[in-house]
Amino acid sequence: MKIILDAMSGDYAPLEILRGAAQAKGEYPEIDILLVGDPDTITSVARKDGLDIEKMEIYASSSVISMEDAPLSVIHDKKDSSMGVGLKLLSQGEGDAFVSAGNTGALLAGASLIVRRLKGIARPGIGAILPLLNPVLLLDSGANITVTEENLEMFAVMGSVYMSKIYGIERPRVGQINNGAEPTKGLPLQIAAYERLSKNENINFVGNIEGKDIPFDTCDVLVADGFTGNVVLKLTEGMGKMMLHTMKDLFYANALTMLSASLMKTRINDLKHRFDSSEHGGAPILGIRKPVIKAHGGSDAKAIKNAIFQAVGFVKDDINGEIERVVNELSDKSKA
Amino acid sequence: MKIILDAMSGDYAPLEILRGAAQAKGEYPEIDILLVGDPDTITSVARKDGLDIEKMEIYASSSVISMEDAPLSVIHDKKDSSMGVGLKLLSQGEGDAFVSAGNTGALLAGASLIVRRLKGIARPGIGAILPLLNPVLLLDSGANITVTEENLEMFAVMGSVYMSKIYGIERPRVGQINNGAEPTKGLPLQIAAYERLSKNENINFVGNIEGKDIPFDTCDVLVADGFTGNVVLKLTEGMGKMMLHTMKDLFYANALTMLSASLMKTRINDLKHRFDSSEHGGAPILGIRKPVIKAHGGSDAKAIKNAIFQAVGFVKDDINGEIERVVNELSDKSKA
Repeated sequence: MKIILDAMSGDYAPLEILRGAAQAKGEYPEIDILLVGDPDTITSVARKDGLDIEKMEIYASSSVISMEDAPLSVIHDKKDSSMGVGLKLLSQGEGDAFVSAGNTGALLAGASLIVRRLKGIARPGIGAILPLLNPVLLLDSGANITVTEENLEMFAVMGSVYMSKIYGIERPRVGQINNGAEPTKGLPLQIAAYERLSKNENINFVGNIEGKDIPFDTCDVLVADGFTGNVVLKLTEGMGKMMLHTMKDLFYANALTMLSASLMKTRINDLKHRFDSSEHGGAPILGIRKPVIKAHGGSDAKAIKNAIFQAVGFVKDDINGEIERVVNELSDKSKA
Repeated sequence: MKIILDAMSGDYAPLEILRGAAQAKGEYPEIDILLVGDPDTITSVARKDGLDIEKMEIYASSSVISMEDAPLSVIHDKKDSSMGVGLKLLSQGEGDAFVSAGNTGALLAGASLIVRRLKGIARPGIGAILPLLNPVLLLDSGANITVTEENLEMFAVMGSVYMSKIYGIERPRVGQINNGAEPTKGLPLQIAAYERLSKNENINFVGNIEGKDIPFDTCDVLVADGFTGNVVLKLTEGMGKMMLHTMKDLFYANALTMLSASLMKTRINDLKHRFDSSEHGGAPILGIRKPVIKAHGGSDAKAIKNAIFQAVGFVKDDINGEIERVVNELSDKSKA
């Protein structure tokens, strides 16, 4: 299996990207990695850092998409970027999946236009695992700031396949973020989506989920428009971070609390891991013909390594094959 | 000063409402309290619980608005309810402020239609203090699920007056919840509101606030449409609750951690207070001619007591006078 990796995008590219690639390769030498970026930069950064990238291919690209570039730059003036070239290679079958820590809008646009959408999926969505005590896949997490009820239904279908295959959850519970639990709550969008989600037999819809219930294991897949999803994802991350800071302050109070903290180290570290978004790798873009993983812009080596492993799982578990199967079934039903 | 109190609305009415009234009166005997509700129920519940309500007036009402009742029931079939009667008394000048733990939609509708809006305010908003390390007034917190950019601007103006008067914050920082920091981020609503907020010299606009930054003291007033605001308020509450649960679990690990917890008691309790929404009393409805405070549906005695004190502050600090002054100034400017 070959993972195509955008070596040039992200806040800490290329160093942390290359470190992550080397770590992934170190743990699983059978994963082939194709680095896309400027060959001179890649080799010199790797050499300086003592990274072993001997067994990785490098494919040359000549520009980098910045966080400020317009989404469509990936198919226009920056189609020769590491992201544009990587997506092109993916669409041509030169690799099985693509991982990038670059500009989200450009990655989604490029994935949709270069790799193309799965049949029956009008809007691909970006899923993100909320850093909570239990994993919750939030979809859409920011790519599509306006959506239709049909889009939300497909997010539910794709998210269910993902959580059942990747996390082994049988009949994942699907919830819709809303301002109240009743079916009549929300904007016209949420009301219409509630009806569609209730009727869809391919998913296990558990109803509307209020903000206060999100942290308490109420669902496995959470659908939302990308505006609300983005606010929810970032607020959850922010609150988790604040929580860890606050606990740290408490434990640094005096010698005894520091001692007890050291005795609870395993449990505290476990909490840290849960609330640390880099543990979950990247965000899968669901609804594209080939797996594309968006790694966090601020990804360090560990986050990149995990995003690579996530891409491997996406391919191995044939998430796309299963999504296509369900979408066909739905389309046959609606024809019947 | 006389506070009119809806004795019959809320999950734990009338007992916890009466207890809260008695506590408020116990601490500040100079506050007059006018209870609205069924006189027999009120007197018998108070007697059974040994509450001293001798010095409070009781005004009879004959029904109660439930959480399921339509907002407009407060002016139609349930205008004789404790909420409807209380609002009527307020509009007639029989008291200085009204506190209710009842149906939010009905309270907002009743306040707007019976007590009426302040001149220049098209949409009153419900403010809520986010239970974070520092107080942040979120406005709107759920009353108006769709708003215009003008509404958001007025929420910013009213919220600034409130935070400067009640919390003594000089030039409160106003932020807008958005899916990114740049002025061009968000839906057309957020983009248009950004422009208006930037130009308004009566407020101290600090820009768009992303979810991840909300917990880190980035602003004092946070404006949002009521849908997003509701999700943010409840998610913040839910994450705070989860955080306290998680800490409790950690501290119950063994004898040493329990000992260190007992030594950090003051600091842990301080955290509990900060993340406990009942500490902040109720949610002020801003933009109504007289102060109306919405107490949480699940209010206990302490929350009601704090909501009463909040109503007192609202009156004493003449929040409405100041809002009117700023709104007039803005309207004069736009005429000039």
